[in-house]
Amino acid sequence: MSFDRLQERIDKLQNPTVVGLDPALGHVPPEILEKHILEKGETLEAAAGAVFEFNQGLVDALSDIVPAVKPQSAYYEALGPEGVFALKHTCDYAKSKGMYVICDGKRNDIGSTAEAYSAAYLGAIKVGGSELRPFDADALTVNAYLGSDGIKPFIEMAVKYDKAVFALVKTSNPSAGELQDMLIGKKGDDSSSFRKESGETATLYSAVGDLMEEISRDTIGKYGYTRVGAVVGATYPEQAEFLRARLKNTFFLVPGYGAQGGSAAEAARAFSADGRGAIVNSSRAIIAAWKKTGGSYAAAAREEALRMRDELRRTIY
Amino acid sequence: MSFDRLQERIDKLQNPTVVGLDPALGHVPPEILEKHILEKGETLEAAAGAVFEFNQGLVDALSDIVPAVKPQSAYYEALGPEGVFALKHTCDYAKSKGMYVICDGKRNDIGSTAEAYSAAYLGAIKVGGSELRPFDADALTVNAYLGSDGIKPFIEMAVKYDKAVFALVKTSNPSAGELQDMLIGKKGDDSSSFRKESGETATLYSAVGDLMEEISRDTIGKYGYTRVGAVVGATYPEQAEFLRARLKNTFFLVPGYGAQGGSAAEAARAFSADGRGAIVNSSRAIIAAWKKTGGSYAAAAREEALRMRDELRRTIY
Repeated sequence: MSFDRLQERIDKLQNPTVVGLDPALGHVPPEILEKHILEKGETLEAAAGAVFEFNQGLVDALSDIVPAVKPQSAYYEALGPEGVFALKHTCDYAKSKGMYVICDGKRNDIGSTAEAYSAAYLGAIKVGGSELRPFDADALTVNAYLGSDGIKPFIEMAVKYDKAVFALVKTSNPSAGELQDMLIGKKGDDSSSFRKESGETATLYSAVGDLMEEISRDTIGKYGYTRVGAVVGATYPEQAEFLRARLKNTFFLVPGYGAQGGSAAEAARAFSADGRGAIVNSSRAIIAAWKKTGGSYAAAAREEALRMRDELRRTIY
Repeated sequence: MSFDRLQERIDKLQNPTVVGLDPALGHVPPEILEKHILEKGETLEAAAGAVFEFNQGLVDALSDIVPAVKPQSAYYEALGPEGVFALKHTCDYAKSKGMYVICDGKRNDIGSTAEAYSAAYLGAIKVGGSELRPFDADALTVNAYLGSDGIKPFIEMAVKYDKAVFALVKTSNPSAGELQDMLIGKKGDDSSSFRKESGETATLYSAVGDLMEEISRDTIGKYGYTRVGAVVGATYPEQAEFLRARLKNTFFLVPGYGAQGGSAAEAARAFSADGRGAIVNSSRAIIAAWKKTGGSYAAAAREEALRMRDELRRTIY
């Protein structure tokens, strides 16, 4: 099962890290961008070519020590369709080097359209008699605001093609709580009582987590996790700990470590007692490490990835 | 201002319709697909070429009677990067025929990444000394689950390039209410009281609507609408009426009419008393009308679009 493969790669490398491939052009070393501009002019095609070359170097430098990458779709879409080609080539290249690929698209829509998104990123589409795989990532991030019928098509596709999704539960950004921390009741509740469980007043984010675990319950793999993971920010460690205790069958993707301010100890609270069930993301701190250190961007990325790995090992295992 | 231009095109054509360009391959007449397969084989490129030809025919048949199109990004992404080229070409072609283009991507992310999405769809990106416009739509749909700091970058880009966004408030799908209808309180509230305003118990969707209007208040155009519109489904007419009364400065994008079951009378409840402030989407019923009528798909689409226009005119004006 998809998350079993991820967990086994984490166990093998003793490293619960995913590197966010968020290639804002400012993170790409200028000599790479200049080379492509010399060839293709100041075009989106040149920028996309530079981004793919940059990513190849990162994957080459990291694939023997880091189990997974998470390309952030926005930075590729920002380079137009040419950039989306670079996204696809990046997914393919990382997989060819044995890495688990989480496409970070935070996609969401009503049922029939959610099906199209799930075919795009996790499944296949039929053209004539041929079944073609548009992006073929291992997992995709999704947003559950539309409720279960916007998520179920992703689960079905994940089951069919042995893939997985991560739904946004508690995000890492400063305004995450504006909606996600709202105290909630259910329609028909008496307005004098919030839903209370385990002594906690229910919040929107915990309700989203509950719903995701509920609708994916029959997809549990051998390590106890369903095919619907949760995005849970390291920047809100108390909530991460609360969710870890509550959602025993949910694998967590943990952003917010490093550049966003979350520490290893805070990220550690998203892990189960056996050190499993979560993976911590770092993007900028790794892919743009060369800006602080100088020298080769690939070597700088590897050095920071090793530092992070060792810190997580000390804290989690 | 972006929504002023949309409103003026609606007024001129006396037609508050947006046609959803959701080209699932099953909606494309087989002879178009076959022609492209003959040329390019059973490839994503062939499928994308067929989709763009189909869309050109639809735009040609509709641009003098319908003010706007809404390409649904999922159906293009389902054809891989080649499909994303078809999305871009569709946006360009519809704009060249004077149509207002709403890219339906429901994008969402934390601040820096939301900025990349807003550059992609509404703004520009700098490559060397050149400012390039990756998709250059007039508006983009967004999802507010991450709170205001995930939406503000879109507002800033919309102001800079005279564009707009539509945030999901109350969606049209059957499970929309699972999260969106939850009764909410604010952190720190005594758990014995939900937030009550205008005699209504507050719901998540109304809180999202409030937040969107609040953070965009200084972007109001001449018809009284901010640059942040709201997606409000015709399939929940009571909630649409409630939101219309509550969010006086918010332009509504109304899905759910037609194939999803919403009637013209139900869609009408999303409009202001002067018949402005909303636009109603129809996708399948128009673009796949040829399946019911036979004959030319373009003529069938035009006929259904005229029928819808006349029905909306009778109901709303």
